[in-house]
Amino acid sequence: MLRPRLITLTTDFGTHDWFVGTMKGVIHGTAPRAAIIDLTHEIAPGDIRAGAFALAAGYRFFPLGTVHVVVVDPGVGSARRGIAVRSRDYFFVGPDNGVLSWALAREKILALHRLENQNYFLKPVSRTFHGRDVFAPVAAHLCRGVPIRKLGPPAKDFVRLDWPAPTKTARGLRGEVVYIDRFGNAITNIEASRLPNLRPIAVVLNGKRLCSVADFYQAVAPGRPVAVAGSSGFLEIAINGGNAARGLRIHVGATVVLRIPSD
Amino acid sequence: MLRPRLITLTTDFGTHDWFVGTMKGVIHGTAPRAAIIDLTHEIAPGDIRAGAFALAAGYRFFPLGTVHVVVVDPGVGSARRGIAVRSRDYFFVGPDNGVLSWALAREKILALHRLENQNYFLKPVSRTFHGRDVFAPVAAHLCRGVPIRKLGPPAKDFVRLDWPAPTKTARGLRGEVVYIDRFGNAITNIEASRLPNLRPIAVVLNGKRLCSVADFYQAVAPGRPVAVAGSSGFLEIAINGGNAARGLRIHVGATVVLRIPSD
Amino acid sequence: MLRPRLITLTTDFGTHDWFVGTMKGVIHGTAPRAAIIDLTHEIAPGDIRAGAFALAAGYRFFPLGTVHVVVVDPGVGSARRGIAVRSRDYFFVGPDNGVLSWALAREKILALHRLENQNYFLKPVSRTFHGRDVFAPVAAHLCRGVPIRKLGPPAKDFVRLDWPAPTKTARGLRGEVVYIDRFGNAITNIEASRLPNLRPIAVVLNGKRLCSVADFYQAVAPGRPVAVAGSSGFLEIAINGGNAARGLRIHVGATVVLRIPSD
Repeated sequence: MLRPRLITLTTDFGTHDWFVGTMKGVIHGTAPRAAIIDLTHEIAPGDIRAGAFALAAGYRFFPLGTVHVVVVDPGVGSARRGIAVRSRDYFFVGPDNGVLSWALAREKILALHRLENQNYFLKPVSRTFHGRDVFAPVAAHLCRGVPIRKLGPPAKDFVRLDWPAPTKTARGLRGEVVYIDRFGNAITNIEASRLPNLRPIAVVLNGKRLCSVADFYQAVAPGRPVAVAGSSGFLEIAINGGNAARGLRIHVGATVVLRIPSD
Repeated sequence: MLRPRLITLTTDFGTHDWFVGTMKGVIHGTAPRAAIIDLTHEIAPGDIRAGAFALAAGYRFFPLGTVHVVVVDPGVGSARRGIAVRSRDYFFVGPDNGVLSWALAREKILALHRLENQNYFLKPVSRTFHGRDVFAPVAAHLCRGVPIRKLGPPAKDFVRLDWPAPTKTARGLRGEVVYIDRFGNAITNIEASRLPNLRPIAVVLNGKRLCSVADFYQAVAPGRPVAVAGSSGFLEIAINGGNAARGLRIHVGATVVLRIPSD
Repeated sequence: MLRPRLITLTTDFGTHDWFVGTMKGVIHGTAPRAAIIDLTHEIAPGDIRAGAFALAAGYRFFPLGTVHVVVVDPGVGSARRGIAVRSRDYFFVGPDNGVLSWALAREKILALHRLENQNYFLKPVSRTFHGRDVFAPVAAHLCRGVPIRKLGPPAKDFVRLDWPAPTKTARGLRGEVVYIDRFGNAITNIEASRLPNLRPIAVVLNGKRLCSVADFYQAVAPGRPVAVAGSSGFLEIAINGGNAARGLRIHVGATVVLRIPSD
């Protein structure tokens, strides 16, 4: 049986204000022994897809039983509901707007409940900050051993974001950029495990050959573009020592084509 | 009797350098079991009023006995003194420049002492970083059970920042913006609890009707302004899905007028 | 014998993504009782000298036995090796690219080992994120009591960054700016302990007298430049209430001359 003792927080609250701090204060008031780790708070305001990708890229590196709380919640206070999910390995808590869905798609789900039992909320519940008043206290109560079924009625399903799966082409694969990281690396939706190891692969951006796939950033000269198998499991486009998104004007959604020689 | 085990930090140090980390190292050296939570470190350099507001908005969401350390301290090394305050519910530690005063105004104060006993400082004390050398070690010693009276002689009063209370007008209330948050929401000095619930209230900015008061952000169409009862207890002006401070050019100090229909 | 229970992290990963969070998740999985403190994650991408300075300025303010992990690692995945170092007072873990060297130069070194024993890595080891896959798990294992010699073969030496020592001139000292902090204070390589206490010292920048050395920032009028003995032990140039780097266009490497009157 999972016995959570660790809570992660992923939000678009930034660190400019007291928002994240008060979430931690609320958690600590209920579950003083829980460790709290920030995954990130720098999701762009309301960018549900970026939040979903950050969670999916990071959640598996935490101990079994970790409670992952995600608050990218532009609909706070409206009719959108909050949910708690128990998978075989983790708990997930957040608004049911798709932000949990890319992580949940990889998990074996055991239970899914709506957050409706106000006994586990901070009162009075504001209409603008459910991170502090709903999601943080619910996560803390899960850490205290409250069974997930007590949080509210079971739900049949959760909102799923569309995942842009790459497509096969005559000469290789067509994918797209799904996330830009702090270094300006452009992470694509192409799983690195799908790439053949021993053949030279060309990366095409905006119809022009950009670079090859290599093993690490410094495999090319400084200032040169390169594609590598990134640490999140996806192919990413980088510039050795530079910022690919800025230097090559790559945005989320940009098409990336791989030319893979046949055997 | 309060037995602190949690310390919060609110500073203008940012996270670019090693400043906050060394404060935590110093605390950990004296009080290794204390939990440390960042309220925020992104107060604009030297902005005492923003620090005072952040503390006042956030401090009550922490367990009783929490030690709140605030270091927005442009006068560090000068004659300004440091203080420690014990209220019925919390401890407060920081420079006596007003940064604690908006929180203290809401608390029942039991003890107020100057920080003069160098036995509880890190030595040698620098002239430029009392966060590390004075306030952090004092907070850690409070967590270890050192009585507040040992920190220095009692003080009669503390420096208070003026709080711009809203004023009544013939047709409603006149207030002002006191804080801009990370989302660009403009938080006013008008307590949400003062607003009648069931009457339509118009918000006037720069002499023009801007919007109505609603229950939550998405009560209006995307891109439209709205005023809501914010999570800090004050009315705030937002744009659904946007940045009100930028979009409407609202600055701290801007006048906000509410037109409230009479019964 | 050192028994580490605290790990600090210094990286250029920023806080925009899940990178730092996953390092903490990996540490927590192996050493759940270890406390983790961020020194900073805002080192400019790949800026080894800034990382080396931040570590050297901050590491001594942590309890004896702390494991300091530094990941500013533009050569990740290439032939550069990782090292773990035990000094009399601390542990250090990071890439052997000089980023540890300014701190190590101040320490009595007892052991130096290459990180080659894959039993202490997270598997599979990526080619782009050794912070998560190598350095974090190694630090956690040190916290669990794994002897440093088990991590890999001893190394004879580590890569050292050149430290720009100040030089004596006929009338004083010639130094340079080595770090700009969040406030825009320009930290020089001139140790404050080398300055005579009771004589007026003039600071010359770009051939012109800029200011005097004073005891604290507010010793001069608002908006005026001043040089003070900074909290990291070096002379720094500031503007009272302002940003010296921006206001005076000071960059890392700028020459700073001190005119010190003879007895």
